[in-house]
Amino acid sequence: MTARNLFLLPGDGIGPEAMGEVRKIIAYMNEAMNAGFVTDEGLVGGSAYDAHGAAISEADMQKALAADAVLFGAVGGPKWDSVPYEVRPEAGLLRLRKDLQLFANLRPAICYPALAAASSLKPELVEGLDILIIRELTGGVYFGEPKEIIDLGNGQKRGIDTQVYDTYEIERIAGVAFEMARTRQNRVCSMEKRNVMKSGVLWNQVVTETHKAKYSDVQLEHMLADAGGMQLVRQPKQFDVIVTDNLFGDMLSDVAAMLTGSLGMLPSASLGAPDGKTGKRKALYEPVHGSAPDIAGKGIANPIAMIASFAMCLRYSFNLVKEADDLEKAIANVLDKGIRTGDIMADGARQVGTVEMGDAILAEF
Amino acid sequence: MTARNLFLLPGDGIGPEAMGEVRKIIAYMNEAMNAGFVTDEGLVGGSAYDAHGAAISEADMQKALAADAVLFGAVGGPKWDSVPYEVRPEAGLLRLRKDLQLFANLRPAICYPALAAASSLKPELVEGLDILIIRELTGGVYFGEPKEIIDLGNGQKRGIDTQVYDTYEIERIAGVAFEMARTRQNRVCSMEKRNVMKSGVLWNQVVTETHKAKYSDVQLEHMLADAGGMQLVRQPKQFDVIVTDNLFGDMLSDVAAMLTGSLGMLPSASLGAPDGKTGKRKALYEPVHGSAPDIAGKGIANPIAMIASFAMCLRYSFNLVKEADDLEKAIANVLDKGIRTGDIMADGARQVGTVEMGDAILAEF
Ligand SMILES: CC(C)[C@H](C(=O)O)[C@@H](O)C(=O)O
Ligand SMILES: CC(C)[C@H](C(=O)O)[C@@H](O)C(=O)O
Repeated sequence: MTARNLFLLPGDGIGPEAMGEVRKIIAYMNEAMNAGFVTDEGLVGGSAYDAHGAAISEADMQKALAADAVLFGAVGGPKWDSVPYEVRPEAGLLRLRKDLQLFANLRPAICYPALAAASSLKPELVEGLDILIIRELTGGVYFGEPKEIIDLGNGQKRGIDTQVYDTYEIERIAGVAFEMARTRQNRVCSMEKRNVMKSGVLWNQVVTETHKAKYSDVQLEHMLADAGGMQLVRQPKQFDVIVTDNLFGDMLSDVAAMLTGSLGMLPSASLGAPDGKTGKRKALYEPVHGSAPDIAGKGIANPIAMIASFAMCLRYSFNLVKEADDLEKAIANVLDKGIRTGDIMADGARQVGTVEMGDAILAEF
Repeated sequence: MTARNLFLLPGDGIGPEAMGEVRKIIAYMNEAMNAGFVTDEGLVGGSAYDAHGAAISEADMQKALAADAVLFGAVGGPKWDSVPYEVRPEAGLLRLRKDLQLFANLRPAICYPALAAASSLKPELVEGLDILIIRELTGGVYFGEPKEIIDLGNGQKRGIDTQVYDTYEIERIAGVAFEMARTRQNRVCSMEKRNVMKSGVLWNQVVTETHKAKYSDVQLEHMLADAGGMQLVRQPKQFDVIVTDNLFGDMLSDVAAMLTGSLGMLPSASLGAPDGKTGKRKALYEPVHGSAPDIAGKGIANPIAMIASFAMCLRYSFNLVKEADDLEKAIANVLDKGIRTGDIMADGARQVGTVEMGDAILAEF
């Protein structure tokens, strides 16, 4: 069989510790299942800045572009709070998203039954919650130009960012949302602010047209993004798939993640378009949580989001659906057994560190 | 004494019904307290479009500009869903905000003790919640130019919005936040996305400098807006005053409002700068809830947010602090007595309509 090439970017903070647990799973799959993973590794974020003076080196960008999939840990920390804007840790992640053209960010917000009590919402509102947020990831205000600070003189400056969306960008992300919905409850809710934004007006039109032309079997609803934020808090289970732009997706997926009580456990996948010839799509997988510098290096970080991100990688990059299911099942089993890292500790559970959690999941896998 | 000029814009949906209850309070204050309110009334939103083909007429704009304060109900409804963008109901509200230069939007998110159980959050997380969100209201992506849809040919269009903030705009809203904090718990949390937006970088800098120059007695914290959304859900009571831009403020204040369980009860004030000579500031007061077309005209809408908005008007436009306190107290008393409109109905409470709720509050006032 051909090799499966993984490029690992552990990054900063708890990223390397969490990635360590995925490395064990990869090694196991190679040994026991003959999975044929070949891994290489690079630097991103603050650690890349320290080594190369850039948030990711050109050589590592080339490796990311060549790999079948990138596994990404986390970036940032107080150490790099005052590095120049262009080389701040986040710039590495943003460049990966943009240069690999990873326009579709899939963020499942699921509530692990064993953790429903950890949500700040009443348990009956989140038990069984299973939302998939599809966030556009290479457009909008994140990348539009002009994006600058102008000196106007007289002590006045002007900060400018530009929100831009073209028809094709909205069409392709809507397509991903409708396709995903068909594998779930067949319902899509599109969110924008068409009442104040022209990009929102276009978003609404294109989603509506795409639906009509190719996906009229899927149930489509439109919601203003502010009302969407409210509804997520009020009655989150009303949603199946949510599709929205880069900035609203950033906000709404964080709120949704927090609702589940499982924040430290949530994975994400960022996908490109399928290649015309091979059908392969570029992809990057990362936990939703950040680099958590306060607990980094202590061996106590929760590796579950990173491991669940690898499960998404098995599913979406390598079509190893059974293996992905099994790995997700292993996570759920370990939680059901009351094995917990400190961040999700509960009465009567057994508290473990990063490595033990990884071992426990591997044992169930 | 000089007259106190109020301009009433009931708007659409449940706006007129809610405004009716405020009219009773105004009449009572004129009679019993010799308050000297003089009222005039106009049209805004869909009702203005039906009458004049615009979301607000020039004559009504002039009256709004001349008044001491504007009371605003709500705008919009399915009837006007497909009117042209320039004359959609929201355009009336946006024009009022812009032309009256109401840059400071004050949105209290408080949890009425009698309603803590109605929150989707666990009661202990919201009991006693009292956050003040200060949202910049005349800048950012709401008004920046270019704001347009361009036809690129080949079936492609481009939607563009522009986020713009100048130093002075950030300075003055930060000033409002720090001043307000001094009357409360003396803590401000500023939210932006400085890690991806240049306007966020400038926002962060200017808030920091304003703090250092004039308000270093106030405790200042910075938070990324997405993390802010998470923290609002996780532990809302950590916040005192939150200051943020127009779009983040729109999202975050809606999430915060929903947390309280008191959405139908929350008021807002939109204030301009104090006039150099008279010290007076232009002002508009409106409920946070919308026009609720589904229940309009049935006499069942909850008028509390509109009445609480009038209480803010008494406080901020007329310095009638005792009267404002008394009116807010009257609302809380009525709730404590178990008198409820349908939207906040609870076991053992007595359900009443819009008019009865207004009467009950007036009786307690
Ligand atoms: C780190 C940051 C640039 C990033 C974003 O804003 O997209 C993060 O918040 C996320 O959601 O992945
Ligand atoms: C009606 C709409 C234009 C408005 C806004 O987006 O500002 C509303 O959502 C609000 O928060 O007051």
